[in-house]
Amino acid sequence: MAQTKINKDFILTVKLAMERMDLGFLRSTLADLHPADIAEVMDGVDMDDAKSLYRLLEDELAAEVMMELEEDVREEFLSALSSKEIAEQVIENIDTDDAVDLLGELSDEKKAEVISHIEDPEHASDLVQLLNYEEDTAGALMATELVKVNVDWTVTRAVRAMRKQGEEVDEVYTVYVVDDHETLLGSLSFKRLFFSASSMQSTIRDLFEAQELRSVTPDTPAEEVVKLMKKYDLVVIPVVNEAGRLLGRITIDDVVDYMQEEAERDYAMASGISQKVESDDSVWLLTRARLPWLIIGLVGGVLVAQVISLYEHQLQLDPKLAFFIPLIAAMGGNVGVQSSAIVVQGLANQSIDLSNILGRLVKEIGVALVNGAVCALLLLAFNLLFSDTLALSYTVSLALFCVIMIAGLFGTFIPIALNRFNVDPALATGPFITTLNDILGLFIYFWIGQFMYAL
Amino acid sequence: MAQTKINKDFILTVKLAMERMDLGFLRSTLADLHPADIAEVMDGVDMDDAKSLYRLLEDELAAEVMMELEEDVREEFLSALSSKEIAEQVIENIDTDDAVDLLGELSDEKKAEVISHIEDPEHASDLVQLLNYEEDTAGALMATELVKVNVDWTVTRAVRAMRKQGEEVDEVYTVYVVDDHETLLGSLSFKRLFFSASSMQSTIRDLFEAQELRSVTPDTPAEEVVKLMKKYDLVVIPVVNEAGRLLGRITIDDVVDYMQEEAERDYAMASGISQKVESDDSVWLLTRARLPWLIIGLVGGVLVAQVISLYEHQLQLDPKLAFFIPLIAAMGGNVGVQSSAIVVQGLANQSIDLSNILGRLVKEIGVALVNGAVCALLLLAFNLLFSDTLALSYTVSLALFCVIMIAGLFGTFIPIALNRFNVDPALATGPFITTLNDILGLFIYFWIGQFMYAL
Repeated sequence: MAQTKINKDFILTVKLAMERMDLGFLRSTLADLHPADIAEVMDGVDMDDAKSLYRLLEDELAAEVMMELEEDVREEFLSALSSKEIAEQVIENIDTDDAVDLLGELSDEKKAEVISHIEDPEHASDLVQLLNYEEDTAGALMATELVKVNVDWTVTRAVRAMRKQGEEVDEVYTVYVVDDHETLLGSLSFKRLFFSASSMQSTIRDLFEAQELRSVTPDTPAEEVVKLMKKYDLVVIPVVNEAGRLLGRITIDDVVDYMQEEAERDYAMASGISQKVESDDSVWLLTRARLPWLIIGLVGGVLVAQVISLYEHQLQLDPKLAFFIPLIAAMGGNVGVQSSAIVVQGLANQSIDLSNILGRLVKEIGVALVNGAVCALLLLAFNLLFSDTLALSYTVSLALFCVIMIAGLFGTFIPIALNRFNVDPALATGPFITTLNDILGLFIYFWIGQFMYAL
Repeated sequence: MAQTKINKDFILTVKLAMERMDLGFLRSTLADLHPADIAEVMDGVDMDDAKSLYRLLEDELAAEVMMELEEDVREEFLSALSSKEIAEQVIENIDTDDAVDLLGELSDEKKAEVISHIEDPEHASDLVQLLNYEEDTAGALMATELVKVNVDWTVTRAVRAMRKQGEEVDEVYTVYVVDDHETLLGSLSFKRLFFSASSMQSTIRDLFEAQELRSVTPDTPAEEVVKLMKKYDLVVIPVVNEAGRLLGRITIDDVVDYMQEEAERDYAMASGISQKVESDDSVWLLTRARLPWLIIGLVGGVLVAQVISLYEHQLQLDPKLAFFIPLIAAMGGNVGVQSSAIVVQGLANQSIDLSNILGRLVKEIGVALVNGAVCALLLLAFNLLFSDTLALSYTVSLALFCVIMIAGLFGTFIPIALNRFNVDPALATGPFITTLNDILGLFIYFWIGQFMYAL
């Protein structure tokens, strides 16, 4: 049960075989590998070698490898192929959902050219239809390849049809049963079909119990598809139109990829990166993703400077007030990010809705009271021991308590409000909420300071 | 194809039926629902009603519903059952992987009691074995339920065995083929078995091609399992011991749940929350998860105060220097979090390794140069227009440029270093890196200020 590991030694072996032009060895080695592994080898050698390797592959395997390459490598490969070659060598050999992803990476002009070169008009029109579905919907995730039988067919006829359809579908999880109008009536699992052992002359209708089958429509949000498949532990879900006509299916592997991308996007957004970038992207791409948030932060910083400038006289009175500016700002930011992260996740998994916002706020007040009291008292103890200005010690601790309370409430309230107005609440975390808390927190700090020093 | 939606109306209908004690209606309604939906209804009514509903369910369905409940609700339910009842009504009716999760939620004492009440000694020893696997490994994710046939069996015998085993396994994705020593030789898909149409007297060996089957061992890290299943688009992967003996299987639904939990944990950690909490957890739990990071932030803030106190004379000279303290601190924090987030994701998907650290640092310097220059010049333009202290304007912009450079390098370097010493690099983001950047950034700011004002 040896599993080929694509490591540096393996890639070196391939490189050496290429140098001595040992095409026999290369062909047989590549034929044994999974497309994902071949793609990994190709990502590990330089572009010219990768192209030579690609030319050694059979059309079908080559097409599958193409889909597994890193997006920037694939772009380079596709630019070397004519529209006709892309249509005939690649598109014809991959599932419609992959084909749509690949077409989406081409310019509009090239996309149209490639589609015009697809021989089967039905295949071409399927693709055009799929390309029309909006991103992040079930339509954009689905493939039209599936195995379906008519409810009135005999088992013999159904098996013949399934065998033919099965050749084109990589993973057959389930056989869909439809009527003459292609309306989805239910499904048959292979397990059931295999174990039922009915006469080959009986019809599918005899074998199959009409059951409630979970399905989605093309405009169902992708998030909703993920939730359904997770909740009911599905590996595949059918897509039907409003009239119940079977259009396609979404498989769990595509849902897993979607989940991963979403998680990475959320993480990036929470870290103040405005688009999905990877560490091996160009300096230009990385800068473009990061600069917008930094400029927002800069504007925030300038606003905060204006707030503090209102209290210049106070700083002249006791410059020590400046010592705790970063502490007040940072603690406000930390509490705000914590609160908003909990709300953002609660909104995502729907444990928070409009009916329990008040309860959520009351709970946040409780948490903030405890955290604020503990932090303020710890800081007061420290300052009473090590600082000689009593007014400063009281100011800092009282301000810290207020800041933790306010940041907690804002961190809870803002994402809920954004969500209410259909803005992605994840925007609330990151620089935005931090800046707002800086402004409010320092305002409170100096206001309390003014009061304390006047006592 | 009506899909029952669990909404407020539906829950109200259930509540009303409970008030008028309409058990017939309740039983038939619940019987039509998926266990996950029943659990959702039970989460939507109060605890006493939930318990009444639970008592209406057949043992097997009740056990499945139990696994779908929220963890705190399940805890309450389990505490109402005796160890014997848990063993006989729940454990016997769920898969081993779920049983292990459930046992893990019990106290050690109760766990041992429950296991002692399991009738089948083989089942009990399977569970004890599974409980021994470490968290976040393949062993902890796997179930021992699977469908396997001996390679020397006739098709007739194999089908009989499969039918029997198939009753206990919810989703049969694949049939494993083993030899007399239970060594995994390969697999047969139902699709293949169904379409092969060989004589029922031929053996499995005739039907099946020994092929390279991807498998993992119980100590394979869960992360590695996720990567394999994602890379090769698997819905199930077998678990074998070192000798190749088949121990169990891991299904994609458990991997999807694991991925989701990991993503939530990473997001929480990046937001300064030390353990997985949900918005409906108690104030005490929420406080305990959040206070540790706040205290770290507090200590950081006190350290920053010490750094600034070194420059009290400078602040006395020009209190305006204090205006830009939050800006410098916040920008250092923002840049640090951005850089470290990109590195943390790169380490997670292995696009960063020891061989390209230098390249990564050079690229970060490039990004920081551009971002630093743009931000510093924008701020300089603003200050030259609106501020009357030339020394302050130059100080702030020069310090901002340096801080962006240094925060970028630290944000890149620290997670790589943590990873090198096997500490989770995600720790680097959040309050830790922010505090470090505050200290360094303000040190640079006042140091440059001292120099500029002396000119």
